[in-house]
Amino acid sequence: MTTPTITALAASPDGGKGLARDTRVRWALEEVGQPYEVRLVSFGAMKEPAHLALHPFGQIPTYEDGDLVLFETGSIIFHIAQRRAGLLPVDANARARTITWMFAALSSVEPPILELANAKLLEGDKPWSKERLPLVSDRARDRLKQLSARLGSADWLDGGFSVGDLMMVHVLQRLKPSGILDEFPNLAAYVARGEARPAYKRAFAAQLTVNTDA
Amino acid sequence: MTTPTITALAASPDGGKGLARDTRVRWALEEVGQPYEVRLVSFGAMKEPAHLALHPFGQIPTYEDGDLVLFETGSIIFHIAQRRAGLLPVDANARARTITWMFAALSSVEPPILELANAKLLEGDKPWSKERLPLVSDRARDRLKQLSARLGSADWLDGGFSVGDLMMVHVLQRLKPSGILDEFPNLAAYVARGEARPAYKRAFAAQLTVNTDA
Repeated sequence: MTTPTITALAASPDGGKGLARDTRVRWALEEVGQPYEVRLVSFGAMKEPAHLALHPFGQIPTYEDGDLVLFETGSIIFHIAQRRAGLLPVDANARARTITWMFAALSSVEPPILELANAKLLEGDKPWSKERLPLVSDRARDRLKQLSARLGSADWLDGGFSVGDLMMVHVLQRLKPSGILDEFPNLAAYVARGEARPAYKRAFAAQLTVNTDA
Repeated sequence: MTTPTITALAASPDGGKGLARDTRVRWALEEVGQPYEVRLVSFGAMKEPAHLALHPFGQIPTYEDGDLVLFETGSIIFHIAQRRAGLLPVDANARARTITWMFAALSSVEPPILELANAKLLEGDKPWSKERLPLVSDRARDRLKQLSARLGSADWLDGGFSVGDLMMVHVLQRLKPSGILDEFPNLAAYVARGEARPAYKRAFAAQLTVNTDA
Protein backbone atom coordinates (compact mmCIF):
# COMPACT_ATOMS: atom_id res chain seq x y z
CA MET A 1 0.00 0.00 0.00
CA THR A 2 1.15 3.49 -0.84
CA THR A 3 0.89 6.42 1.55
CA PRO A 4 -1.92 8.82 0.62
CA THR A 5 -1.45 12.59 0.69
CA ILE A 6 -4.14 14.95 1.91
CA THR A 7 -4.24 18.72 1.63
CA ALA A 8 -4.92 21.09 4.51
CA LEU A 9 -4.84 24.85 4.94
CA ALA A 10 -1.48 26.31 5.93
CA ALA A 11 -3.44 28.53 8.32
CA SER A 12 -7.01 27.56 9.13
CA PRO A 13 -9.49 30.42 9.73
CA ASP A 14 -10.44 28.78 13.04
CA GLY A 15 -6.83 28.99 14.24
CA GLY A 16 -6.65 25.28 15.05
CA LYS A 17 -10.00 24.54 16.70
CA GLY A 18 -10.28 21.48 14.49
CA LEU A 19 -13.26 22.73 12.46
CA ALA A 20 -11.43 22.75 9.11
CA ARG A 21 -12.48 19.69 7.17
CA ASP A 22 -9.06 18.08 7.04
CA THR A 23 -9.58 17.23 10.73
CA ARG A 24 -12.34 14.75 9.98
CA VAL A 25 -10.21 13.07 7.32
CA ARG A 26 -7.20 12.94 9.67
CA TRP A 27 -9.50 11.41 12.28
CA ALA A 28 -10.65 8.66 9.89
CA LEU A 29 -7.05 7.92 8.90
CA GLU A 30 -6.08 7.68 12.58
CA GLU A 31 -9.04 5.40 13.38
CA VAL A 32 -7.98 2.84 10.79
CA GLY A 33 -4.24 3.26 11.40
CA GLN A 34 -3.44 4.56 7.92
CA PRO A 35 -0.25 6.67 7.78
CA TYR A 36 -0.58 9.77 5.60
CA GLU A 37 1.26 12.78 4.27
CA VAL A 38 -0.04 16.35 4.37
CA ARG A 39 0.55 19.04 1.80
CA LEU A 40 -0.30 22.50 3.08
CA VAL A 41 -1.92 25.04 0.76
CA SER A 42 -2.56 28.73 1.32
CA PHE A 43 -6.01 30.26 1.08
CA GLY A 44 -5.00 31.89 -2.18
CA ALA A 45 -3.44 28.77 -3.71
CA MET A 46 -6.70 26.90 -3.08
CA LYS A 47 -8.33 28.97 -5.82
CA GLU A 48 -5.47 28.54 -8.32
CA PRO A 49 -5.66 26.19 -11.34
CA ALA A 50 -3.24 23.64 -9.84
CA HIS A 51 -5.49 23.06 -6.85
CA LEU A 52 -8.73 23.42 -8.84
CA ALA A 53 -7.52 20.51 -10.96
CA LEU A 54 -7.70 18.40 -7.80
CA HIS A 55 -10.77 20.03 -6.27
CA PRO A 56 -13.25 21.75 -8.61
CA PHE A 57 -14.68 23.84 -5.76
CA GLY A 58 -11.30 25.13 -4.60
CA GLN A 59 -11.40 23.74 -1.09
CA ILE A 60 -9.52 21.40 1.19
CA PRO A 61 -9.07 18.55 1.87
CA THR A 62 -8.19 16.51 -1.17
CA TYR A 63 -6.89 12.93 -1.11
CA GLU A 64 -4.27 11.65 -3.51
CA ASP A 65 -3.05 8.08 -3.73
CA GLY A 66 -1.12 7.19 -6.86
CA ASP A 67 -3.40 8.00 -9.80
CA LEU A 68 -6.46 8.46 -7.65
CA VAL A 69 -7.58 11.97 -6.70
CA LEU A 70 -10.63 12.44 -4.48
CA PHE A 71 -12.36 15.44 -2.91
CA GLU A 72 -15.44 15.79 -0.65
CA THR A 73 -14.87 14.53 2.88
CA GLY A 74 -17.75 12.07 2.57
CA SER A 75 -16.12 10.37 -0.37
CA ILE A 76 -12.62 10.48 1.09
CA ILE A 77 -13.66 9.07 4.44
CA PHE A 78 -15.79 6.36 2.84
CA HIS A 79 -12.80 5.39 0.69
CA ILE A 80 -10.55 5.21 3.76
CA ALA A 81 -13.16 3.16 5.64
CA GLN A 82 -13.45 0.68 2.78
CA ARG A 83 -9.71 0.09 2.53
CA ARG A 84 -9.03 -0.74 6.17
CA ALA A 85 -11.12 -2.22 8.95
CA GLY A 86 -12.41 -0.16 11.84
CA LEU A 87 -15.05 2.25 10.61
CA LEU A 88 -17.58 0.13 8.70
CA PRO A 89 -19.45 -2.93 10.00
CA VAL A 90 -18.95 -6.19 8.09
CA ASP A 91 -22.65 -7.16 8.08
CA ALA A 92 -24.21 -5.81 4.86
CA ASN A 93 -27.32 -4.27 6.44
CA ALA A 94 -25.40 -2.68 9.31
CA ARG A 95 -22.97 -1.30 6.76
CA ALA A 96 -25.78 0.25 4.71
CA ARG A 97 -27.23 1.85 7.85
CA THR A 98 -23.82 3.23 8.81
CA ILE A 99 -23.45 4.76 5.36
CA THR A 100 -26.92 6.27 5.85
CA TRP A 101 -25.70 8.14 8.93
CA MET A 102 -22.72 9.47 7.02
CA PHE A 103 -25.08 10.94 4.42
CA ALA A 104 -27.43 12.15 7.16
CA ALA A 105 -24.58 14.08 8.78
CA LEU A 106 -23.65 15.74 5.49
CA SER A 107 -27.05 16.22 3.84
CA SER A 108 -29.48 16.74 6.73
CA VAL A 109 -27.50 17.98 9.74
CA GLU A 110 -24.63 20.00 8.29
CA PRO A 111 -26.67 22.28 5.95
CA PRO A 112 -28.67 24.08 8.68
CA ILE A 113 -25.50 24.35 10.79
CA LEU A 114 -23.61 25.89 7.87
CA GLU A 115 -26.52 28.20 7.14
CA LEU A 116 -26.21 29.47 10.70
CA ALA A 117 -22.45 29.88 10.26
CA ASN A 118 -23.04 31.76 6.99
CA ALA A 119 -25.63 33.99 8.68
CA LYS A 120 -22.91 35.09 11.11
CA LEU A 121 -19.85 35.08 8.87
CA LEU A 122 -21.26 36.36 5.59
CA GLU A 123 -24.26 38.39 6.76
CA GLY A 124 -23.30 39.43 10.29
CA ASP A 125 -22.94 43.05 9.16
CA LYS A 126 -26.26 43.20 7.32
CA PRO A 127 -29.17 45.24 8.69
CA TRP A 128 -31.33 42.07 8.95
CA SER A 129 -28.76 40.02 10.82
CA LYS A 130 -30.11 40.49 14.34
CA GLU A 131 -33.69 39.73 13.43
CA ARG A 132 -32.82 36.84 11.17
CA LEU A 133 -30.40 34.91 13.41
CA PRO A 134 -33.11 33.45 15.69
CA LEU A 135 -34.92 32.01 12.66
CA VAL A 136 -31.79 30.36 11.36
CA SER A 137 -30.86 29.13 14.82
CA ASP A 138 -34.29 27.54 15.14
CA ARG A 139 -33.80 25.62 11.92
CA ALA A 140 -30.60 24.09 13.30
CA ARG A 141 -32.35 23.49 16.63
CA ASP A 142 -35.24 21.66 14.94
CA ARG A 143 -32.85 19.28 13.24
CA LEU A 144 -30.93 18.62 16.46
CA LYS A 145 -34.18 17.92 18.28
CA GLN A 146 -34.87 15.10 15.83
CA LEU A 147 -31.33 13.77 16.03
CA SER A 148 -31.42 13.89 19.82
CA ALA A 149 -34.70 11.94 19.86
CA ARG A 150 -33.20 9.25 17.64
CA LEU A 151 -29.93 8.93 19.56
CA GLY A 152 -31.76 8.68 22.89
CA SER A 153 -29.50 7.16 25.52
CA ALA A 154 -27.33 5.22 23.07
CA ASP A 155 -23.59 5.82 22.86
CA TRP A 156 -23.51 5.85 19.05
CA LEU A 157 -26.08 6.16 16.27
CA ASP A 158 -26.23 2.49 15.25
CA GLY A 159 -24.29 -0.12 17.22
CA GLY A 160 -20.58 0.54 17.65
CA PHE A 161 -18.67 3.68 16.66
CA SER A 162 -18.63 4.02 12.87
CA VAL A 163 -17.89 6.33 10.00
CA GLY A 164 -21.41 7.71 10.51
CA ASP A 165 -20.60 8.81 14.06
CA LEU A 166 -17.25 10.25 13.01
CA MET A 167 -18.94 12.46 10.45
CA MET A 168 -21.83 13.42 12.73
CA VAL A 169 -19.58 14.37 15.63
CA HIS A 170 -17.41 16.56 13.44
CA VAL A 171 -20.46 18.24 11.91
CA LEU A 172 -21.98 18.95 15.33
CA GLN A 173 -18.77 20.44 16.74
CA ARG A 174 -19.31 23.62 14.74
CA LEU A 175 -22.43 24.36 16.82
CA LYS A 176 -20.57 24.47 20.13
CA PRO A 177 -19.97 28.25 20.29
CA SER A 178 -23.67 28.93 19.59
CA GLY A 179 -24.73 27.14 22.77
CA ILE A 180 -27.29 25.16 20.77
CA LEU A 181 -25.43 21.87 21.18
CA ASP A 182 -25.61 22.18 24.97
CA GLU A 183 -29.39 22.46 24.78
CA PHE A 184 -29.31 18.74 23.94
CA PRO A 185 -27.32 17.02 26.70
CA ASN A 186 -27.29 13.64 24.97
CA LEU A 187 -25.84 15.20 21.81
CA ALA A 188 -23.26 17.20 23.79
CA ALA A 189 -22.22 13.95 25.53
CA TYR A 190 -22.12 12.19 22.16
CA VAL A 191 -19.74 14.81 20.77
CA ALA A 192 -17.60 14.60 23.92
CA ARG A 193 -17.50 10.81 23.51
CA GLY A 194 -16.16 11.24 20.00
CA GLU A 195 -13.58 13.79 21.10
CA ALA A 196 -12.36 11.42 23.81
CA ARG A 197 -11.29 8.81 21.27
CA PRO A 198 -7.49 8.50 21.00
CA ALA A 199 -7.68 8.70 17.21
CA TYR A 200 -9.56 12.00 17.43
CA LYS A 201 -6.99 13.38 19.86
CA ARG A 202 -4.15 12.50 17.51
CA ALA A 203 -5.98 14.10 14.57
CA PHE A 204 -6.76 17.23 16.55
CA ALA A 205 -3.16 17.54 17.75
CA ALA A 206 -1.84 17.15 14.22
CA GLN A 207 -3.97 19.99 12.81
CA LEU A 208 -3.22 22.14 15.85
CA THR A 209 0.51 21.80 15.25
CA VAL A 210 0.08 23.16 11.73
CA ASN A 211 -1.92 26.12 13.00
CA THR A 212 0.37 26.84 15.92
CA ASP A 213 3.42 26.87 13.68
CA ALA A 214 1.71 29.13 11.17
CA MET B 1 -34.38 -10.78 -4.51
CA THR B 2 -37.26 -9.15 -2.71
CA THR B 3 -39.04 -6.05 -3.97
CA PRO B 4 -38.10 -2.92 -2.03
CA THR B 5 -40.70 -0.39 -0.92
CA ILE B 6 -40.06 3.33 -0.99
CA THR B 7 -42.18 6.09 0.49
CA ALA B 8 -43.33 9.20 -1.37
CA LEU B 9 -45.67 12.06 -0.57
CA ALA B 10 -49.33 11.48 -1.39
CA ALA B 11 -49.33 15.06 -2.70
CA SER B 12 -45.98 16.72 -3.38
CA PRO B 13 -45.75 20.48 -2.74
CA ASP B 14 -44.38 20.90 -6.28
CA GLY B 15 -47.54 19.32 -7.75
CA GLY B 16 -45.59 16.74 -9.72
CA LYS B 17 -42.66 18.70 -11.15
CA GLY B 18 -40.38 15.87 -10.02
CA LEU B 19 -38.51 17.89 -7.39
CA ALA B 20 -39.61 15.73 -4.44
CA ARG B 21 -36.77 13.44 -3.49
CA ASP B 22 -38.55 10.19 -4.27
CA THR B 23 -38.04 11.09 -7.95
CA ARG B 24 -34.28 10.64 -7.75
CA VAL B 25 -34.70 7.27 -6.03
CA ARG B 26 -37.29 6.16 -8.60
CA TRP B 27 -34.84 7.23 -11.30
CA ALA B 28 -32.04 5.11 -9.82
CA LEU B 29 -34.38 2.11 -9.53
CA GLU B 30 -35.42 2.55 -13.17
CA GLU B 31 -31.80 2.87 -14.34
CA VAL B 32 -30.85 -0.50 -12.84
CA GLY B 33 -34.17 -2.19 -13.70
CA GLN B 34 -35.20 -2.83 -10.11
CA PRO B 35 -38.98 -3.18 -9.62
CA TYR B 36 -40.28 -1.40 -6.54
CA GLU B 37 -43.38 -0.69 -4.52
CA VAL B 38 -44.45 2.75 -3.31
CA ARG B 39 -46.23 3.57 -0.07
CA LEU B 40 -47.72 7.05 -0.08
CA VAL B 41 -47.66 9.12 3.10
CA SER B 42 -49.39 12.40 3.84
CA PHE B 43 -47.49 15.50 4.95
CA GLY B 44 -48.90 15.05 8.44
CA ALA B 45 -48.15 11.34 8.68
CA MET B 46 -44.51 12.08 7.83
CA LYS B 47 -44.11 13.68 11.27
CA GLU B 48 -45.87 10.87 13.16
CA PRO B 49 -44.02 8.25 15.27
CA ALA B 50 -44.61 5.43 12.76
CA HIS B 51 -42.79 7.30 10.01
CA LEU B 52 -40.20 8.81 12.35
CA ALA B 53 -39.22 5.25 13.26
CA LEU B 54 -38.19 4.83 9.63
CA HIS B 55 -36.86 8.35 9.06
CA PRO B 56 -35.64 10.32 12.09
CA PHE B 57 -36.02 13.65 10.24
CA GLY B 58 -39.62 12.98 9.20
CA GLN B 59 -39.11 13.15 5.46
CA ILE B 60 -39.50 11.04 2.35
CA PRO B 61 -38.25 8.89 0.75
CA THR B 62 -37.42 5.87 2.84
CA TYR B 63 -36.36 2.48 1.49
CA GLU B 64 -37.43 -0.79 3.05
CA ASP B 65 -36.29 -4.22 1.94
CA GLY B 66 -36.96 -7.04 4.38
CA ASP B 67 -35.30 -6.06 7.67
CA LEU B 68 -33.36 -3.20 6.14
CA VAL B 69 -34.62 0.36 6.50
CA LEU B 70 -32.71 3.22 4.90
CA PHE B 71 -33.26 6.97 4.59
CA GLU B 72 -31.25 9.77 2.92
CA THR B 73 -31.36 9.66 -0.86
CA GLY B 74 -27.55 9.42 -1.06
CA SER B 75 -27.54 6.26 0.98
CA ILE B 76 -30.57 4.73 -0.75
CA ILE B 77 -29.28 5.40 -4.24
CA PHE B 78 -25.81 4.13 -3.39
CA HIS B 79 -27.40 0.95 -2.01
CA ILE B 80 -29.42 0.49 -5.20
CA ALA B 81 -26.33 1.12 -7.34
CA GLN B 82 -24.33 -1.48 -5.42
CA ARG B 83 -26.94 -4.20 -5.78
CA ARG B 84 -27.40 -4.04 -9.56
CA ALA B 85 -25.17 -2.98 -12.43
CA GLY B 86 -25.65 0.25 -14.35
CA LEU B 87 -24.82 3.18 -12.09
CA LEU B 88 -21.33 2.48 -10.71
CA PRO B 89 -18.19 1.75 -12.73
CA VAL B 90 -16.46 -1.57 -12.05
CA ASP B 91 -12.92 -0.13 -11.93
CA ALA B 92 -12.12 0.74 -8.31
CA ASN B 93 -10.69 4.22 -8.95
CA ALA B 94 -13.48 5.20 -11.36
CA ARG B 95 -15.97 3.97 -8.77
CA ALA B 96 -14.41 6.10 -6.03
CA ARG B 97 -14.53 9.16 -8.30
CA THR B 98 -18.18 8.50 -9.13
CA ILE B 99 -19.00 8.28 -5.43
CA THR B 100 -17.16 11.60 -5.02
CA TRP B 101 -19.58 13.28 -7.44
CA MET B 102 -22.53 11.87 -5.55
CA PHE B 103 -21.21 13.51 -2.38
CA ALA B 104 -20.36 16.68 -4.31
CA ALA B 105 -23.96 16.95 -5.49
CA LEU B 106 -25.32 16.57 -1.97
CA SER B 107 -22.69 18.39 0.10
CA SER B 108 -21.37 21.13 -2.17
CA VAL B 109 -24.01 21.87 -4.81
CA GLU B 110 -27.33 21.20 -3.10
CA PRO B 111 -26.79 23.35 0.05
CA PRO B 112 -26.53 26.75 -1.72
CA ILE B 113 -29.47 25.76 -3.94
CA LEU B 114 -31.58 24.84 -0.93
CA GLU B 115 -30.52 28.03 0.83
CA LEU B 116 -31.90 29.94 -2.13
CA ALA B 117 -35.11 27.89 -2.01
CA ASN B 118 -35.37 28.58 1.75
CA ALA B 119 -34.80 32.29 1.17
CA LYS B 120 -37.87 32.31 -1.06
CA LEU B 121 -40.10 29.78 0.71
CA LEU B 122 -39.35 30.49 4.35
CA GLU B 123 -38.26 34.13 4.25
CA GLY B 124 -40.02 35.48 1.17
CA ASP B 125 -42.32 37.59 3.35
CA LYS B 126 -39.53 39.06 5.50
CA PRO B 127 -38.52 42.72 5.17
CA TRP B 128 -34.99 41.73 4.15
CA SER B 129 -36.04 39.30 1.44
CA LYS B 130 -35.64 41.59 -1.56
CA GLU B 131 -32.22 42.84 -0.56
CA ARG B 132 -30.96 39.44 0.54
CA LEU B 133 -32.02 37.31 -2.46
CA PRO B 134 -29.25 38.56 -4.78
CA LEU B 135 -26.61 37.57 -2.20
CA VAL B 136 -28.01 34.10 -1.84
CA SER B 137 -28.42 33.75 -5.61
CA ASP B 138 -24.78 34.70 -6.04
CA ARG B 139 -23.68 31.93 -3.69
CA ALA B 140 -25.52 29.37 -5.83
CA ARG B 141 -24.13 31.04 -8.96
CA ASP B 142 -20.54 30.83 -7.65
CA ARG B 143 -20.88 27.10 -7.09
CA LEU B 144 -22.38 26.55 -10.53
CA LYS B 145 -19.56 28.52 -12.11
CA GLN B 146 -17.07 26.04 -10.66
CA LEU B 147 -19.15 23.05 -11.67
CA SER B 148 -19.56 24.42 -15.18
CA ALA B 149 -15.80 24.91 -15.48
CA ARG B 150 -15.17 21.31 -14.44
CA LEU B 151 -17.82 19.78 -16.71
CA GLY B 152 -16.56 21.74 -19.72
CA SER B 153 -17.77 20.15 -22.93
CA ALA B 154 -18.11 16.65 -21.50
CA ASP B 155 -21.43 14.83 -21.52
CA TRP B 156 -21.08 13.56 -17.94
CA LEU B 157 -18.91 14.41 -14.95
CA ASP B 158 -16.52 11.45 -15.15
CA GLY B 159 -16.75 9.02 -18.06
CA GLY B 160 -20.17 7.47 -18.65
CA PHE B 161 -23.44 8.34 -16.92
CA SER B 162 -23.25 7.33 -13.26
CA VAL B 163 -24.88 7.68 -9.90
CA GLY B 164 -22.93 10.94 -9.54
CA ASP B 165 -24.62 12.42 -12.61
CA LEU B 166 -28.03 11.17 -11.52
CA MET B 167 -27.69 12.97 -8.21
CA MET B 168 -26.19 16.13 -9.72
CA VAL B 169 -28.88 16.46 -12.39
CA HIS B 170 -31.66 16.09 -9.85
CA VAL B 171 -30.03 18.63 -7.54
CA LEU B 172 -29.62 21.16 -10.37
CA GLN B 173 -33.22 20.83 -11.56
CA ARG B 174 -34.45 22.85 -8.59
CA LEU B 175 -32.61 25.91 -9.96
CA LYS B 176 -34.50 25.98 -13.24
CA PRO B 177 -37.23 28.48 -12.24
CA SER B 178 -34.58 30.94 -10.95
CA GLY B 179 -33.03 31.26 -14.39
CA ILE B 180 -29.59 30.65 -12.87
CA LEU B 181 -29.19 27.26 -14.52
CA ASP B 182 -29.66 28.80 -17.96
CA GLU B 183 -26.77 31.19 -17.29
CA PHE B 184 -24.55 28.11 -17.72
CA PRO B 185 -25.46 26.57 -21.09
CA ASN B 186 -23.29 23.47 -20.56
CA LEU B 187 -25.03 22.75 -17.25
CA ALA B 188 -28.48 23.37 -18.72
CA ALA B 189 -27.61 20.92 -21.52
CA TYR B 190 -26.28 18.46 -18.95
CA VAL B 191 -29.57 18.53 -17.05
CA ALA B 192 -31.52 18.15 -20.32
CA ARG B 193 -29.33 15.14 -21.18
CA GLY B 194 -30.26 13.52 -17.88
CA GLU B 195 -33.95 14.25 -18.37
CA ALA B 196 -33.82 12.66 -21.83
CA ARG B 197 -32.88 9.28 -20.41
CA PRO B 198 -35.70 6.73 -20.68
CA ALA B 199 -35.24 5.75 -17.01
CA TYR B 200 -35.71 9.37 -15.93
CA LYS B 201 -38.83 9.69 -18.06
CA ARG B 202 -40.34 6.60 -16.44
CA ALA B 203 -39.50 7.90 -12.95
CA PHE B 204 -40.93 11.33 -13.73
CA ALA B 205 -44.12 9.82 -15.15
CA ALA B 206 -44.56 7.60 -12.10
CA GLN B 207 -44.37 10.50 -9.63
CA LEU B 208 -46.58 12.64 -11.87
CA THR B 209 -49.31 9.99 -11.84
CA VAL B 210 -49.38 10.12 -8.03
CA ASN B 211 -49.65 13.89 -8.05
CA THR B 212 -52.22 14.03 -10.82
CA ASP B 213 -54.45 11.53 -9.06
CA ALA B 214 -54.13 13.39 -5.76
